[in-house]
Amino acid sequence: MKKRLFPAALSGGVILLAGIGALSVQGAEEVSWSYEGATGPGQWGGLAASFAACADGGQQSPINLARTIPAQGGTLAVDWQSTGAEVVDNGHTIQVNMAPGSSMRLEGRDFSLLQFHFHLPSEHTVDGRSIPMEVHFVHQATEGDLAVIGVFMEAGAGHAAIDEIWNAIPDAVGEPASLGSFDPNSLLPDGLDHSRYAGSLTTPPCSEVVSWVVLDETIAVSQAQVDAFADLYPMNARPVQELNRRFVLSRSDAP
Amino acid sequence: MKKRLFPAALSGGVILLAGIGALSVQGAEEVSWSYEGATGPGQWGGLAASFAACADGGQQSPINLARTIPAQGGTLAVDWQSTGAEVVDNGHTIQVNMAPGSSMRLEGRDFSLLQFHFHLPSEHTVDGRSIPMEVHFVHQATEGDLAVIGVFMEAGAGHAAIDEIWNAIPDAVGEPASLGSFDPNSLLPDGLDHSRYAGSLTTPPCSEVVSWVVLDETIAVSQAQVDAFADLYPMNARPVQELNRRFVLSRSDAP
Repeated sequence: MKKRLFPAALSGGVILLAGIGALSVQGAEEVSWSYEGATGPGQWGGLAASFAACADGGQQSPINLARTIPAQGGTLAVDWQSTGAEVVDNGHTIQVNMAPGSSMRLEGRDFSLLQFHFHLPSEHTVDGRSIPMEVHFVHQATEGDLAVIGVFMEAGAGHAAIDEIWNAIPDAVGEPASLGSFDPNSLLPDGLDHSRYAGSLTTPPCSEVVSWVVLDETIAVSQAQVDAFADLYPMNARPVQELNRRFVLSRSDAP
Repeated sequence: MKKRLFPAALSGGVILLAGIGALSVQGAEEVSWSYEGATGPGQWGGLAASFAACADGGQQSPINLARTIPAQGGTLAVDWQSTGAEVVDNGHTIQVNMAPGSSMRLEGRDFSLLQFHFHLPSEHTVDGRSIPMEVHFVHQATEGDLAVIGVFMEAGAGHAAIDEIWNAIPDAVGEPASLGSFDPNSLLPDGLDHSRYAGSLTTPPCSEVVSWVVLDETIAVSQAQVDAFADLYPMNARPVQELNRRFVLSRSDAP
């Protein structure tokens, strides 16, 4: 039953880019990497041939968001549903794998929600500033490329859905635990104004296949909830990467 | 006197990117390249170490212009003057070197006009179509990076300024001939609506230092003028390059 809800390729944090042969990450999970020390972000590109983009790429993520260009397009619609969900500590973050049924539409293309996971502090920065946490909703198109919605999590009131997830975190790494039915909309702010740019996975193999959508509005979590995550992962944010002349576009539905 | 009007670095088609050490092209003029055969565009990247970007770059030019994104910004002002000019057949195109005095302003940054030169057929394409010719007005900022304005030249009525240039083309390659005083505004269409993107030189070393501005409006030249250029350079256009997820922005001042 669990296999039907969560195909093997989506469990344990491994994203199979089935449609993009050259960027397939089979076996990548065998290479150990971390956020500090000898296998930290500055070394990722050399840890495995398949990680080369981490060092050599020109469209890497995260980035500092500044000087965005107001632009048309960037039409974004989120169509998420309550579906079955499971929580896994994949050794790098806490991740919630979602059963099929939720999707987003960006620029006329559909992407299915696979999973979401958390970073502390935020990976994207805004005018050089970090936010306490950031959640990434990872969607995949049938062609294999990804669209990720990033939502900043600021310290404020406690968030019931975060309690729900944190309470379900299993003790063992790599062993998913059921979260029952979960509604991801509970982690979505009201407005969908955003910045978007062409970027990459923020973890090895750093594949440059991600259309990034970082929302302007934030959600609030309590300092206690931030601290509880920090007990597991005190720092799991890749440093910001060079922009390399990429245009970062902003989209506002406000008149 | 000629030296004061046209610094050596600007003569003979060599652009010295003084402010960008890694992209300096000293000595590049010694490496032979062409638009076909064993030293054609597909081989440029391997002809010299300094040409590597021609093969390995991710922001190469020209590109096919399609699906542009209407965006704010891209503020463009052209402030060209009649100045002393000289015509040179540099072995790859006909180029007009301009004495200092003309500039453009893009996104609040100033760029000085160095030279303009011609391609047949057009290097940029529009929805997959070539235009008979394209003229590139090459400007440089004090930081060393370039802004190039591309203007498509369609076949139509004859153009007096083109006659003026064609008539001054010297017989010998690499030996500039005076054009007297020349007004580049004669080759500028009325409107400055344009597409812009982050690209490269379209000739070796293909340095990725160019903010491209390709105007929507065209100018007209006669078929006889096109043919006269074709007698010298039957084909001097690099094929269009991969977009690699770059956003191409369009800017219209129309309401």
